[in-house]
Amino acid sequence: MTYTVIVANAPAIDLTPYQRLLTLADRLIAADGGGTALFAGGYTPHVIIGDLDSIAAEALTAYQAQGVAIERHRPDKDETDLELALLAAAAMGATRIDVIGALGGRWDQSLANVMLLGMPELRGRRVRLLDVPQQIWLVDRESIIPGLVGDTVSLLPFGGDAHGITTAGLAYPLTNGTLYHDRARGVSNVINNLPARVSVGQGMLLVVLTTQAEPV
Amino acid sequence: MTYTVIVANAPAIDLTPYQRLLTLADRLIAADGGGTALFAGGYTPHVIIGDLDSIAAEALTAYQAQGVAIERHRPDKDETDLELALLAAAAMGATRIDVIGALGGRWDQSLANVMLLGMPELRGRRVRLLDVPQQIWLVDRESIIPGLVGDTVSLLPFGGDAHGITTAGLAYPLTNGTLYHDRARGVSNVINNLPARVSVGQGMLLVVLTTQAEPV
Repeated sequence: MTYTVIVANAPAIDLTPYQRLLTLADRLIAADGGGTALFAGGYTPHVIIGDLDSIAAEALTAYQAQGVAIERHRPDKDETDLELALLAAAAMGATRIDVIGALGGRWDQSLANVMLLGMPELRGRRVRLLDVPQQIWLVDRESIIPGLVGDTVSLLPFGGDAHGITTAGLAYPLTNGTLYHDRARGVSNVINNLPARVSVGQGMLLVVLTTQAEPV
Repeated sequence: MTYTVIVANAPAIDLTPYQRLLTLADRLIAADGGGTALFAGGYTPHVIIGDLDSIAAEALTAYQAQGVAIERHRPDKDETDLELALLAAAAMGATRIDVIGALGGRWDQSLANVMLLGMPELRGRRVRLLDVPQQIWLVDRESIIPGLVGDTVSLLPFGGDAHGITTAGLAYPLTNGTLYHDRARGVSNVINNLPARVSVGQGMLLVVLTTQAEPV
């Protein structure tokens, strides 16, 4: 299993809650400005990816001096820095990818980052967006929900309606149920029994977990 | 034209940038905890809608004493407070709806609130989520983008891919183009000519405008 952590460009990222993940990662990728937070935290990425318009000059200079690999793209590229970083992680064979700093700041960027979870190149990999105490991932078959009893879980249809949804361990259960993309009926469910699980027959679900458990 | 403003429950809402809109509104709806911000700002809603688990007791008591209408729902309702408020606004014939306080706080709530823009009851109405300096709305045919030259505009497919997209007044133009739901190719376009416009032939687009212009 290859575990990759990507640090993206949300403003004012505090890496403290992610220290353990950053240490465990086989590969650490800075998506452009995410390199600023990594530099402030004393971490060295394996590669910096992006058009380099947002990483702090001091961080870039220091990392260049250390010989950190840099994958520089043209400023008028079609992809966002995070999309490029996710593609690189997939190309390098990551089976687990956690993304820090994808949420927060501009709403268009956060929403676009959530949509990237649907990239076909990520199918079959475990990919999460982390913003402690919340984590977001996409389910197209089934997933364990790694929370504690009492944690809030929301199930949000992704890219259309989701059918054949069955849950275990949730206070408001679904059995072969449907959630519609343009309603908000899967919001604020609660874990009442471990392990909590969700499966989906047709379509995809974003799972948003709010938990006091440390992300592992 | 009937103009309704809904104030939802995001934490720490500052109503200052919305004073003019709040004054212009024909109807003002508090979605549960949104009533707390309205009360702090000295506004009186026409109706408070929700399960009343988040509005401050002081605000609720004062509004009850003033005879403000209250549409109370059971705590185990399927709908979110904002969904109920949007349905009420539509039922009362609103042709324009602005929502303040739908963005921020928990990611599941913000994402679900964005998805509510797709509610069939809202078709044909002009509905925006406002979080100054950003505004988000859904386009299923065509829309003027009410920004200034230099403003950032992102076009994000909603509920699936969007086809037949044509823009005017944007630095990276599209002519009968396609944007894919699981990519991020419509992020960070720029207005370079007024009026900027977008139209979509098949599917729907979220437009996210970042502007220094006052929301009108």
